Amino acid sequence: MPTNLQDILDQIHEQVTARSDHGEVATYIPELARVDPKQFGLAVALPDGRLLSVGDAEVPFSIQSISKVFTLAIALGRVGNQLWKRVGREPSGHAFNSILQLEHEKGIPRNPFINAGAIVVTDVILASSSPKEALAGLLTFIRTAADDPNIYINEAVARSEKETGHRNLALAHFMRGFGNLTHEPELTLGTYFHQCAVEMSCRQLAMAGRFLVNARGMPHLISPSRIRRINALMMTCGHYDGSGDFAFRVGLPAKSGVGGGILVIVPGKASIAVWSPGLTPLGNSRLGTEAVHLLAQRTQWSVFG
Amino acid sequence: MPTNLQDILDQIHEQVTARSDHGEVATYIPELARVDPKQFGLAVALPDGRLLSVGDAEVPFSIQSISKVFTLAIALGRVGNQLWKRVGREPSGHAFNSILQLEHEKGIPRNPFINAGAIVVTDVILASSSPKEALAGLLTFIRTAADDPNIYINEAVARSEKETGHRNLALAHFMRGFGNLTHEPELTLGTYFHQCAVEMSCRQLAMAGRFLVNARGMPHLISPSRIRRINALMMTCGHYDGSGDFAFRVGLPAKSGVGGGILVIVPGKASIAVWSPGLTPLGNSRLGTEAVHLLAQRTQWSVFG
Amino acid sequence: MPTNLQDILDQIHEQVTARSDHGEVATYIPELARVDPKQFGLAVALPDGRLLSVGDAEVPFSIQSISKVFTLAIALGRVGNQLWKRVGREPSGHAFNSILQLEHEKGIPRNPFINAGAIVVTDVILASSSPKEALAGLLTFIRTAADDPNIYINEAVARSEKETGHRNLALAHFMRGFGNLTHEPELTLGTYFHQCAVEMSCRQLAMAGRFLVNARGMPHLISPSRIRRINALMMTCGHYDGSGDFAFRVGLPAKSGVGGGILVIVPGKASIAVWSPGLTPLGNSRLGTEAVHLLAQRTQWSVFG
Amino acid sequence: MPTNLQDILDQIHEQVTARSDHGEVATYIPELARVDPKQFGLAVALPDGRLLSVGDAEVPFSIQSISKVFTLAIALGRVGNQLWKRVGREPSGHAFNSILQLEHEKGIPRNPFINAGAIVVTDVILASSSPKEALAGLLTFIRTAADDPNIYINEAVARSEKETGHRNLALAHFMRGFGNLTHEPELTLGTYFHQCAVEMSCRQLAMAGRFLVNARGMPHLISPSRIRRINALMMTCGHYDGSGDFAFRVGLPAKSGVGGGILVIVPGKASIAVWSPGLTPLGNSRLGTEAVHLLAQRTQWSVFG
Repeated sequence: MPTNLQDILDQIHEQVTARSDHGEVATYIPELARVDPKQFGLAVALPDGRLLSVGDAEVPFSIQSISKVFTLAIALGRVGNQLWKRVGREPSGHAFNSILQLEHEKGIPRNPFINAGAIVVTDVILASSSPKEALAGLLTFIRTAADDPNIYINEAVARSEKETGHRNLALAHFMRGFGNLTHEPELTLGTYFHQCAVEMSCRQLAMAGRFLVNARGMPHLISPSRIRRINALMMTCGHYDGSGDFAFRVGLPAKSGVGGGILVIVPGKASIAVWSPGLTPLGNSRLGTEAVHLLAQRTQWSVFG
Repeated sequence: MPTNLQDILDQIHEQVTARSDHGEVATYIPELARVDPKQFGLAVALPDGRLLSVGDAEVPFSIQSISKVFTLAIALGRVGNQLWKRVGREPSGHAFNSILQLEHEKGIPRNPFINAGAIVVTDVILASSSPKEALAGLLTFIRTAADDPNIYINEAVARSEKETGHRNLALAHFMRGFGNLTHEPELTLGTYFHQCAVEMSCRQLAMAGRFLVNARGMPHLISPSRIRRINALMMTCGHYDGSGDFAFRVGLPAKSGVGGGILVIVPGKASIAVWSPGLTPLGNSRLGTEAVHLLAQRTQWSVFG
Repeated sequence: MPTNLQDILDQIHEQVTARSDHGEVATYIPELARVDPKQFGLAVALPDGRLLSVGDAEVPFSIQSISKVFTLAIALGRVGNQLWKRVGREPSGHAFNSILQLEHEKGIPRNPFINAGAIVVTDVILASSSPKEALAGLLTFIRTAADDPNIYINEAVARSEKETGHRNLALAHFMRGFGNLTHEPELTLGTYFHQCAVEMSCRQLAMAGRFLVNARGMPHLISPSRIRRINALMMTCGHYDGSGDFAFRVGLPAKSGVGGGILVIVPGKASIAVWSPGLTPLGNSRLGTEAVHLLAQRTQWSVFG
Repeated sequence: MPTNLQDILDQIHEQVTARSDHGEVATYIPELARVDPKQFGLAVALPDGRLLSVGDAEVPFSIQSISKVFTLAIALGRVGNQLWKRVGREPSGHAFNSILQLEHEKGIPRNPFINAGAIVVTDVILASSSPKEALAGLLTFIRTAADDPNIYINEAVARSEKETGHRNLALAHFMRGFGNLTHEPELTLGTYFHQCAVEMSCRQLAMAGRFLVNARGMPHLISPSRIRRINALMMTCGHYDGSGDFAFRVGLPAKSGVGGGILVIVPGKASIAVWSPGLTPLGNSRLGTEAVHLLAQRTQWSVFG
């Protein structure tokens, strides 16, 4: 860990917020379309207990697809490797909400981080929990990881997703047609839309991500081998069809969400959360990616040498 | 580095060679179809200069697609980031020789490790070298990295590929139709088939791979940032449509070839070469993958924590 | 018209029912799975008012996708060429229930005879009618064309489809996500499942098909130019991904349904209905196709010379 | 046949040539790119021996893909239904030069009128002829059908295609990789490029098309059942991915070429040739299609009633 990490964060903040090409906010979920695209926050949690941050790091945002990391951990805790009978572990080569691959591969989504795969993961959790219990379990998991009880679901966002979630309903019905969804699409998706509507600040998300760092001084909620596997999936599939580029430029496992947040893990060293609501055409935070790129460069944090 | 690494290698050798499900040798290249599928070799090069090995680690085999790692390093040395105008950095979601993606994405291959992408990389090198010079440069690069002058191209294998390389000719002509191949397909492919026909033993390949480890005591042929980027591409794209699974199970950047070899990099720690000619349906060495999986487990070598 | 048409029908009946390769009944709709696959009926309506038939020509069967011909005629009557803004006129090159093309072509189905296209056609009719009115209008149209008031919807079949219609729900939600469905998927599909559950005998269907023959002595419910266009669509798209083969072998416009029925039009000369519940893998009646092939051969009925 | 057919042709000529949206000439074959897009010709051959024409009906143009109709007739004469083991009979749902379908369907082209399928047809003819003999046989067939010895191959166009035919080479190598091409791609394509470079005027083409009309007073070069089948393929596949639309609008079997020509058959009644070099994005003559549409409307020529 660099001794001047706060300086680096300050520099990145200044550099990134000076840019005007912050991209556009996701518009397909009405509640998200209202967010001010100029916001930017960054927080880093370290094994020594320190939490460094800069910018709008206390502003809660919708974690959206970052929730898939937490539900994956929970589902693996419930059914272990049985999960991989219903979802694959390969990058998809398609957009986050594409249905193309599902038809060719008979309803088995390519990985747990594209929408179809995450819907199956939620469906797996619902095998042993009601929707209410599942969401309560998710909040408990996140709050424990973050060591912070003040993390909630934004009901307005959840409702907003439900009203516009035709594509996700299509994916769910399609998989149900192939027998790869055990509950009614409305039930599984109701839960899924709520998990996506969890709100956290960068500080909270960086804290919650510590369970994937595998370092002394960080919470150990799952086994080291499972940590490694989730990190591997984040590396190969965490940014949809921009995963290869993120691995190439940043070199760290990470998961993005269309709310503009990214959770980045530096194995053994740090948990990073960045947030800026403007997105690239692939659905990843534009300035968030840029900030993490600079941070990785200046700290020499990379898993690749 | 575990102190008992040789013991671990011996155990893995015993365990893996006892298995009968070694998969089938690639048959589409006649010369490769004759190789005895029961062979198995493993070698590990360490920063302290030691080279540990087990099994058929001195037997030369056809490195095939592993050559793509070396040509990528050479092409980046020639044209730098200009390369990325002609080839992408994303996993493909398709087989190593698929042409589907090329049509949708107008002749730009998804990454430099699928066949189409590697053919473009070779075409880039040919912009400043004749085929003879290009191949001589490749051998010089590999021999320098391996610190071993006895590395050669097997002409019979190169000819054998040429006679059966219809799919690669299709890819090359297809890209030329889109303007993404500057030389005649026969010229670029003639060079490509020869680079694939380089033969190395596990010992030689482990030695040659050291330039990607980024450790003191290892040769530094390219910059650390370039090392990290090549490793990133190996992680996300090194095993074709099995890359996600390899990252999940092994957690290390690696490149496989249909000759049954795999080059695996442990950033900062080791360069590993494994070889067993029997393949999975996706074209990766079955026992080789298994051996590396066991080695990563027992050494706790993983980039993911 | 051959003078010995009844003889031809009798020969075909004998020849076809002697075969044991009648194919398998559709199983994805439970109510249809119970039908005896050995049934076979054939009826021909002629401009002189005669109705010739053979076999089980009085047994009602589920017309399923043949209903798409009638709803297309009704929708064109309502909105005319505006329809073609929401659905194309090209063969799809994919299965009847494929979703692949919809993603590439932004929710516009390729033609009105694949499921997605037929769902849009029903959605168009619902713009000016409630589901009840739409179904009443469909029955009125069919009864008028057939000159027979005893044509009904089988509610058990409609319910059966609803319970297993996940794929159709996926298609509908997918198109709604693209803005190409104006009603709630449940509403449009509820109507669609009922239209598919109309039951008719071969005699009734051959009578109903007369409105597409464009001959003196046949009912004129739509304009000759519209007749020609619907026949053209039946020729190029009436048998899903087997349309080219049917055109090649039989040479007549036709529409098949998974209930095992086929409506075949001989422009200016006859309306033919055939029924045998066993299907080919593409979802078309196996013996029905064979019978029509023989009939076209022996009567020299072909639009192609 | 309308008594005032010449009047109709004159009106269509006036109406169509007044339009300025004639589309753009094919540019990928340099020799074709030089053609003046404002030319327009139309000719109709009737069973009574009359040949009516209008506009540039005596100007020779490159028939390009229209040649596929003649080679198909020749190949069927050589191997009969054996042909269908190597090529299908279904519309492709893709562009004329797409390679997508070939990968999914293992090197079997969907129909004989897309490029891949036509290359297979030529390959079939080469099984019993040298390229020279095959081309001589093709010219003999066409000259006999047209009753005109003055029909030749334009060598400059053939060479021009060869130099830019990368996509066709890709298709050929691809199929050879699947074992569905028995000769070297260069040999088969050399023949194919020459067959495409046959030049004919509208008058000559309308005369040559008579062998598909199946009428007394027209040449009978192939059996009526084969005529019907070729016409069926022209109807479902003759305009690439615009075949459905042409069937819908015109209602007649036809084959287009990128030289701007279209051969249209009115079974039992007429053979029509139209030419205007400007193309739609799908590669079919824009004004040619329009002219045939008007002609079919005014003559009531349609196979669909």
